[in-house]
Amino acid sequence: MELKIKPWRIETTDGSLETKDFRESIFCQANGYMGMRGYAPEDRKVNNYSRAAFLAGFYEYIRPGITDMVNQPDVSSTTLLANGIDISALPKEGFKQVLNMRDGTLYRCYTAEDTQGRKTHVAVTRFLSMARRHVAAFRFEVTSVNHAGTITIETGIDSAVENLPISDNQLNENTETSRLWGEPEVHTGGLYMETVVSKRGVAAEYRVIGNKSAVLNHGETAVLDKIVAIYSFRDEGDPRSMAIQAADTAATFGFDALLAENAEAWDALWNTADIEVDADEALQGAIRYNVFSLIQTAPHNDPHASIGARGLSHGRYKGCTFWDTEIFMLPFYLFTNPATAKNLLLYRYHTMQDAIESASRFSLTGARYSWMASDTGFEQCETWDTGCCEIHITADIAYAFGRYIEVTGDEDFFAQHAAEVYIQTARYWASRFTYDAADDRYNLLFVKGPDEYCGVTNNNLYTVKMAAHNLQLAISAMERMGQGFLNVTDEEINRWREIASKAVVRYDADTCLYHQDDVFHLLEPINPADYKDDNTPLYHRISFDRLQRYQVLKQADVLMLMALFPKNFTDAQKQAAWSHYEPKTLHDSTLSFGAHALMAATLGIAGKAEDYFYKSCFLDLKNVMANTAHEGIHTAALGITWQALIFGFAGLWADGDGLHCDPKLPQWIRGMRFRVFHKGRPCQIRIKHGEEAQINQHIGT
Amino acid sequence: MELKIKPWRIETTDGSLETKDFRESIFCQANGYMGMRGYAPEDRKVNNYSRAAFLAGFYEYIRPGITDMVNQPDVSSTTLLANGIDISALPKEGFKQVLNMRDGTLYRCYTAEDTQGRKTHVAVTRFLSMARRHVAAFRFEVTSVNHAGTITIETGIDSAVENLPISDNQLNENTETSRLWGEPEVHTGGLYMETVVSKRGVAAEYRVIGNKSAVLNHGETAVLDKIVAIYSFRDEGDPRSMAIQAADTAATFGFDALLAENAEAWDALWNTADIEVDADEALQGAIRYNVFSLIQTAPHNDPHASIGARGLSHGRYKGCTFWDTEIFMLPFYLFTNPATAKNLLLYRYHTMQDAIESASRFSLTGARYSWMASDTGFEQCETWDTGCCEIHITADIAYAFGRYIEVTGDEDFFAQHAAEVYIQTARYWASRFTYDAADDRYNLLFVKGPDEYCGVTNNNLYTVKMAAHNLQLAISAMERMGQGFLNVTDEEINRWREIASKAVVRYDADTCLYHQDDVFHLLEPINPADYKDDNTPLYHRISFDRLQRYQVLKQADVLMLMALFPKNFTDAQKQAAWSHYEPKTLHDSTLSFGAHALMAATLGIAGKAEDYFYKSCFLDLKNVMANTAHEGIHTAALGITWQALIFGFAGLWADGDGLHCDPKLPQWIRGMRFRVFHKGRPCQIRIKHGEEAQINQHIGT
Repeated sequence: MELKIKPWRIETTDGSLETKDFRESIFCQANGYMGMRGYAPEDRKVNNYSRAAFLAGFYEYIRPGITDMVNQPDVSSTTLLANGIDISALPKEGFKQVLNMRDGTLYRCYTAEDTQGRKTHVAVTRFLSMARRHVAAFRFEVTSVNHAGTITIETGIDSAVENLPISDNQLNENTETSRLWGEPEVHTGGLYMETVVSKRGVAAEYRVIGNKSAVLNHGETAVLDKIVAIYSFRDEGDPRSMAIQAADTAATFGFDALLAENAEAWDALWNTADIEVDADEALQGAIRYNVFSLIQTAPHNDPHASIGARGLSHGRYKGCTFWDTEIFMLPFYLFTNPATAKNLLLYRYHTMQDAIESASRFSLTGARYSWMASDTGFEQCETWDTGCCEIHITADIAYAFGRYIEVTGDEDFFAQHAAEVYIQTARYWASRFTYDAADDRYNLLFVKGPDEYCGVTNNNLYTVKMAAHNLQLAISAMERMGQGFLNVTDEEINRWREIASKAVVRYDADTCLYHQDDVFHLLEPINPADYKDDNTPLYHRISFDRLQRYQVLKQADVLMLMALFPKNFTDAQKQAAWSHYEPKTLHDSTLSFGAHALMAATLGIAGKAEDYFYKSCFLDLKNVMANTAHEGIHTAALGITWQALIFGFAGLWADGDGLHCDPKLPQWIRGMRFRVFHKGRPCQIRIKHGEEAQINQHIGT
Repeated sequence: MELKIKPWRIETTDGSLETKDFRESIFCQANGYMGMRGYAPEDRKVNNYSRAAFLAGFYEYIRPGITDMVNQPDVSSTTLLANGIDISALPKEGFKQVLNMRDGTLYRCYTAEDTQGRKTHVAVTRFLSMARRHVAAFRFEVTSVNHAGTITIETGIDSAVENLPISDNQLNENTETSRLWGEPEVHTGGLYMETVVSKRGVAAEYRVIGNKSAVLNHGETAVLDKIVAIYSFRDEGDPRSMAIQAADTAATFGFDALLAENAEAWDALWNTADIEVDADEALQGAIRYNVFSLIQTAPHNDPHASIGARGLSHGRYKGCTFWDTEIFMLPFYLFTNPATAKNLLLYRYHTMQDAIESASRFSLTGARYSWMASDTGFEQCETWDTGCCEIHITADIAYAFGRYIEVTGDEDFFAQHAAEVYIQTARYWASRFTYDAADDRYNLLFVKGPDEYCGVTNNNLYTVKMAAHNLQLAISAMERMGQGFLNVTDEEINRWREIASKAVVRYDADTCLYHQDDVFHLLEPINPADYKDDNTPLYHRISFDRLQRYQVLKQADVLMLMALFPKNFTDAQKQAAWSHYEPKTLHDSTLSFGAHALMAATLGIAGKAEDYFYKSCFLDLKNVMANTAHEGIHTAALGITWQALIFGFAGLWADGDGLHCDPKLPQWIRGMRFRVFHKGRPCQIRIKHGEEAQINQHIGT
C-alpha cells in the first residue's frame, strides 16, 4: 500500500481490508500515557484483541513471573447508523485517512452508500491529548449526502477485550487469546475493571456532546463529540473518581478547546525535536514520522515506565523493553527532551532492586538487567540462549547513564542515581566473567551479541567492550564518590580494573580487524546474495538454527560498538570492520539498517549510506521488512534513523569537551536545521553543503 | 518412606498422605500397552490429572506441533461404602501394599473404622494382564470385621480426566491443566471418547462379577471382581466393538483364570530376563525391580511406539522418548528379549520419514532424529539450546541399530531397515558439520553433549565420535548394499570418510586425556563438595545458567562414550578420563550414577562402583534424587543399572566375534546367574568369585 508522505502529513486513500492491519500500525496514535492502534471506531471488531489499545507500564501476569502488556478497554467503540443501517457494513468510496503529525490528529472520511443509493458521508477526527495525557477526544461528523433520514451515533466502551500473548520465538505464531480482565463495573458514561490475577484496575469515562440521533435533510451534518478520560492503578489516587473528574472537566472544555491545547503541547514538543531538511518532501515527511513516533511513544512524565519494542502500537514481545530503548532511542530524547531521557533512565534505576534480585536468581552478584523487562526488572525472556546469554543489556544501560551525564552534565543525577547503577552493574560483570588461570585472562563465556546469529558464543567483542566500559564507569564513579560508597572495597575495584584490562579481545593488528568473537571465523562462509533477495528476514526461509552456522550477521555487531564509541576506534579499524562485516550482514533485524547508515555516513560511503538510510527511515512507512502490519511500529528503527541523520550525516557529537558538528551531508539533503540540548542549554544547528556547521547556543526555547 | 524390598516383592505399611505420590510412582503397573500409577481405586480424586493412566503411543496435540501423552479415562474408579459411609474418608489402620514382581499383581489392604467403631477390612488386588494386554482386572474384597451391615461397591469409569502438560524447562512447574478429551459417549458398562483436536478415540469397557451390594454378618466378606478392556485408535479395527468383545471374553474367563494366564506370561518374561544374585535380599529385590520395571514399560508388541523418559508411570517430559531408550534401555531388551528391541528400533525406522522432513525443517539433509519424540518423529523440545543443539540422539539411534545387528546377527533387519537408517542419518551429519578451510578440519558447532551443563559448545567429543561412528556405519553399509542403494554417490561416501577422519577431536597424548569439547577447560574450576551435599540436583540451588560456567558435569560425557565403545579406548585413556571427569561430575541426572558404576566396575574402582551402583539400583526405591514422587520411574536409570551389572560387574560383551564374559564381581555379590540372547540363541551365564564365568549356549528357553 502506497502512502502519501507530506512534510507534516501521512495520507492514504486506500481503505481496503487487505491493508487494514498496516494502516492500523502506521496510523497508531499515542501520547506516552496511552496508545491506540489506528482502527476505525465505527467498524465492527473481528476479534477481541486486534483493536488494541495500551497504557504505558500496564502489564499483567499471564503465568507465574511472565507478564503481557494489557489490551485496554476500547474507548472508541461506536456504531453509526444511517436510516437504521450500520454504516460499517456498507460499501464505501472516497476513503481518505490523514495523520497530521503537527498536532497528532487522525482524520478519516468516506462516503457510504446503501442498497437504495442513499449516500452518507462520515468523518472522524480523533486525538490523544498531549496536553492532558489522560484524555482522548473523538469527533464524528455524519452528513446525509443525498437523502433525508435518521442518523444514529451509538457510542460507548467495549470491555470485551482480550490479549494475544506472543511467544518469545519469532517463528511461533500464537493463536490462543487470553482474557486478563475480570467482569467490568459498568455505569452510565463509564466503567471500571480490574485484571483477574493482580487486581490492576482501569477506569474509563466518556462524555458525549451532541445528539445521538438526528433527522437530517439533504446535505446536513450531525456532529457528535466523544470525550474520554482514562486513569489506572498506576496513577496516584482513585482511578474511578479521577476519571470521572477528568472526563467532566474535559467535556466542559469541549473538543475544540481540547484540540487547541493539544496542538499547543505538540508545538512545544516539535520546537525542540523537529528536524527541517532541505530535501524532497517525502523524505522530510518520513524523517518527521520517525520523530513524531518517538515523541508519541515515550512515557514522558513517568519515571516508572519505559518503551516497548513496538511502543504502544502493538503487543509484540509482550510489550517488553529491550536495549532498544537505551541504545537506539535514548539519544533522541537525550538531545531533544532530556527530562524524558531522565525518566527513561529512572525506570531502570527504579527497577534496580529487581535487577539485584535477578542477579541473585542467576547465582551472580550486583545488578543484572533483563533482556526483556516489563513493569518489574525481572527477566521476561524465557529461553536460555537469549534470556540468559544476551547479557549486553546491562552494560548498555550503564552506557546510557554515562551518555546522559556526559551530554546533560547533570551531576545530581550522577550522584543520586548513576553512580549506584554503575557500581551494581559492575558487580554483576565481576561475577559474570570467568577467569582463565592458564592464560591469565578473563573470558565471557556463553554469550550472545547483538548479532543474534552465531549461536551462543564466547568473548563477543561488543559485549566484552561494553562490559569493560561499564567497569570503567564504576571505577571512575568510585574516584568521585569516595571510599565507603555502597561498601565497595579496594579489592572489588582492583578486580574491576583487572577484568577490564584482561578481558579477551581478539584484534588483528595487521589488518586492523576486530574479531566479533571466538567462533565467527569458523562458520561456513556464504554469499548472502545467493540466499536473500529481498528485505524480509531470512529466518522465514532458512531455519533459525541453520543460520547460526553460516558466516552471516543478523545485524550490526562490531560496527554497532564502533557507532557507540566513535572516538575509540581509528578510521582504519572502522573501515576494516565495515569491509569484513557489512557484506556478511543480512539485516534480519530492523535495528540493522540505521546502524549501517550511521557507519556508512561516518565512513563517507555515499551509496550505502543512502540505501541504508532510506530503508531505515521508511522502514514502517514503506513496510520494508513486510512486518509492520502484524507487528506495529519498530521503535528502535525510529531511534537509529534519528542517530544516522544527526550523528551520521549531520556529524554531531557531544562529550565532556563540548558539542561538535562535522557534517557529512549527502547530496540528497541540501541542508538541515535542528535543535539539541547540550549541558541543559538548547542549541540550534544549521548545516549546508559547502559551509561550516553553525551551532547557536543559548537560543530561546 | 521406607520400603521393604524382598527378592520378589516390594512392600510398604505406610499409607500416609505424605507418601502417596511416591507410592503411586513405585507401585505403578504397566504391561507395555497400558500403564496406571499405583493409586487406590476406591480413594476420592483430588484433581483430574494425578490419577494418571496412559496408553503407549497415545498422544494428542496441546498446541501446533507439540503433543502430550494423554491421561486416559480412569477405569479403576470405585466407591466403597460400609453402612452408607464412604470408606475412603475413614481413618485406616493395618495398611499394607505389596507389589508382586513375579506376576505384576498389586495388593493393597487396610482396616477402616467409622465413628461408631465399626471396622471394615478392604483388600484390593489388581493387575494389567501381560497375557492379554488390553485387559486389566481388579478384585475388591470387603470384610465386615466387627459389625453386621451393608457393603456397597460402586464402580465405573471416570472420564473427567485432564492433562497437566509439563514444560521443557525442568524448573518451571506447570499449574495449568488441559482437557484434551471431548464429551464421552457413555453406555452401561463402558464408554468411548475422542480427543478434541485429532479425534483420537479410546473405548473402555468393564464387567462386574459379584454383587454390588451385600448385607454381611460379622466376619463375612463381599467379593467383587471388575474386568476391564481397553482399545484405542491405535489398534487395528473398531475400538468400541473390540473392547466390548474383549471385556465379555475376559469376564467369562474370570479373575482367577486371567490371573493364572497373566502369571504364566510373566513367567516366560522372567525366564529370559531374570538376574539371580547371591547377595542380600534387598539388593536381589532391587535388581529385580529394575528388570521388572523395564519389562513393564516396553511396548513389546508394538513397532510404532517407544518408551518415554518415565515410561507409562508419569507424564513428565510430555511422555516423550529420548536417547534414554536406545543408549540406556535398549541393551536390556537386546539381550533378554530381542523381539522387543527390534520393535523399539522399528519405531525409529517408522518415524524416519518424519526425521527426513525434520532435517529439512532445520535446512539440512538426511534424517535428523528429534531430541524429544512422541508419536511422530518431529521435535517436541522447543528450546534452541537443547532442542536444536543436543543432536547426538541421531547418532545414538544409528549406534543402537548397529549394536542390534552385532548382537542378534539379524541380517534381514540390516538390509531392510538398518542400512537405510545409517545412510539417511549419515547424510544428516554430512550437512551438520562445518568445514574449516583454514585448518582443513570439520567442526561440530553449537552442540550440547550428554553433559547438559557446559552451555552450548563446540566439538563435544561424545557427539563428534558418535557422529563419526554413524558415518562409518553408513560407509560399511554401502560396501554391503552396493552401488545405487538410496542413490548414494561416491562423492557422498568420500565426504563421509573425509568428515569421519577430519572431525575435530581434542586429545592429549601425554596425559591420555580426551577433552570433552573446546570450552570445558575454560570453565571455572570448583570443588563440587563445596556446593553439593546430597543427591538432589544442584540446579535447584544454583541457577541453571550459572552452572554452565562451572567446570562441572551434569552426567557422564566422555566416560559415557567410553562405556559405549569399551574396546576403542585403552585402560590408560579410561583411567585418565575417570580421574579428570569423575571428581567434577555432579550426577544431576538420573542417567549418571549407573554410567559411573559401569565405568568404575570396568576400571576396578571398587568403592566407587559400589556407591554408584547402589544409587542407580535403588534410585527410585530409595528416592535417591528426591524426585520419584512427582516425576515417576526413571526408565533410563533402570536400563543403565542393568548395564552396570551385566556389562560392568559381570563383564559381558558381545560383538561380531562372539559373547565374552570377564567378570569383575564385587565382594557384595557372591555370584550371579542370568540369561542373554546372542545371535538368536539363548545362553545362560553363571558367575562366581574365583571361578571362570560359565556361558552355556543352546539352552532351552
